[in-house]
Amino acid sequence: MLYLIGLGLGDEKDISLRGLEAVKRCENVYLEAYTSILLVEKSKLEALYGREVIVADREMVEQGVESILEQAKTMEVAFLVVGDPFGATTHSDLQMRAKQLGVTVKVIHNASIMNAIGACGLQLYRFGETISIPFFTDTWRPDSFYDKIKKNRDMGLHTLCLLDIRVKEPCFEALARGKKVYEPPRYMSVNTAVEQLLDIEDRRKEGVYGRETTAVGVARIGTDSQCIISGTLEELLTVDYGPPLHSLVVPGELHVMEQELLATFACNESTPRIQKDLIIDEEDEEP
Amino acid sequence: MLYLIGLGLGDEKDISLRGLEAVKRCENVYLEAYTSILLVEKSKLEALYGREVIVADREMVEQGVESILEQAKTMEVAFLVVGDPFGATTHSDLQMRAKQLGVTVKVIHNASIMNAIGACGLQLYRFGETISIPFFTDTWRPDSFYDKIKKNRDMGLHTLCLLDIRVKEPCFEALARGKKVYEPPRYMSVNTAVEQLLDIEDRRKEGVYGRETTAVGVARIGTDSQCIISGTLEELLTVDYGPPLHSLVVPGELHVMEQELLATFACNESTPRIQKDLIIDEEDEEP
Repeated sequence: MLYLIGLGLGDEKDISLRGLEAVKRCENVYLEAYTSILLVEKSKLEALYGREVIVADREMVEQGVESILEQAKTMEVAFLVVGDPFGATTHSDLQMRAKQLGVTVKVIHNASIMNAIGACGLQLYRFGETISIPFFTDTWRPDSFYDKIKKNRDMGLHTLCLLDIRVKEPCFEALARGKKVYEPPRYMSVNTAVEQLLDIEDRRKEGVYGRETTAVGVARIGTDSQCIISGTLEELLTVDYGPPLHSLVVPGELHVMEQELLATFACNESTPRIQKDLIIDEEDEEP
Repeated sequence: MLYLIGLGLGDEKDISLRGLEAVKRCENVYLEAYTSILLVEKSKLEALYGREVIVADREMVEQGVESILEQAKTMEVAFLVVGDPFGATTHSDLQMRAKQLGVTVKVIHNASIMNAIGACGLQLYRFGETISIPFFTDTWRPDSFYDKIKKNRDMGLHTLCLLDIRVKEPCFEALARGKKVYEPPRYMSVNTAVEQLLDIEDRRKEGVYGRETTAVGVARIGTDSQCIISGTLEELLTVDYGPPLHSLVVPGELHVMEQELLATFACNESTPRIQKDLIIDEEDEEP
């Protein structure tokens, strides 16, 4: 039996009673740690579960998943996922491979950014396609998501922008010297996302949005330190949202109640701001 | 302090540890019971919480919410919501009224149909606008959601269809006789939803979908008895999905992995079917 268990958005206390019962029954417990990050130490999970928690990084899941599935044929195995198990394509894939091997899969759902984003005051049913914004590099500045924002906005729909997470990425310079070294983890900030979006608009000039467009920057949704700030893209550039994870919403048409709710999160004098010269560096911020 | 606490999708064990801690701290505990239904007895919640649970029906929330907010000015009050607190517009409204009265609101998220629908094998980020399908009456057969399905499908996006729930609706015949009597609760089945969708296509004839279009009928997602069946709309008409709550997905373009996952849920000889003459009556089925 393979349990896919959502941990929710914050710390060890966001697991459901059902999830906790299951994980306590399992002989082996894996924690998926590359499509999202847990905002709590692994040791706290272990103390709560009374079980060792094995961190499953990208390599392990991509190369070693067969051994996890093999175990699940005869044992109860838990695969813990931050948020909900179906927030990332990987876990649908894992479920399918389990089914193919005749392993029973039981999913225990939880909150994920895909529904908790409702906390920002925009109605969930009025969101269109969700996009992912990857870190630009010197030579790679993709903009296909610009078209998706355009289509959503043409339909009056909101766009949830999931921001890039780079965990345990191999360092190519070190690889070239024959060493396996990993880059420090990087989590895209709302600031970087907005910069990149404005960069694309400057290139494409199709007027999908601009510096005066209202948007919502959010961080650590569902936790005690959650941060929700609405303002123009220009304003959102200057805000200090604090530690990861960050997400951004580019709204479509706003209904009256949505306007009123967004206004309660409006950027103002008491909003924490970042120093301008930090904006350039925050891509390297650590968790 | 007002806690808006998501209960998740199944029974009393789907609350998070964080949510349970909060509800145990609260002096008054309300359960919202008209935008969704709990699949478990209220007494089980009360046994788990060690608290009386007051059922807040539509009338109470629409007319009596001020008294709940008044309590929350000086006490810890819990407002429990099936799924996630932001699944329904009502709760955003409640949050805003609380803010206006200076009541601190703390939200404890949970799974809702909006993210748990990922269990059907379709990727969440590829869903477009969510629609709601209301019960047709003899004189009222709205079809504005047909245009939304069209737009989503034109963009290759999936459409989650939330199906009508009628709880504690006043009986107009009785009202006319001066009595306040309520209609029995009604929960739209996938079968009725598909019938209504096909009825609209027959009228509108814009070829947005047809009897051969692949779709997915789901029931009781996130519970032990969850049912996920993929098939043509024609096939889905014949399936017995069991008790509420039901939802329907009309997919857009299917990626390879989505096709493979949907295939694992395909309607076949072992799928439970309903008797044809029951199809007409299932609108009246009881919870």
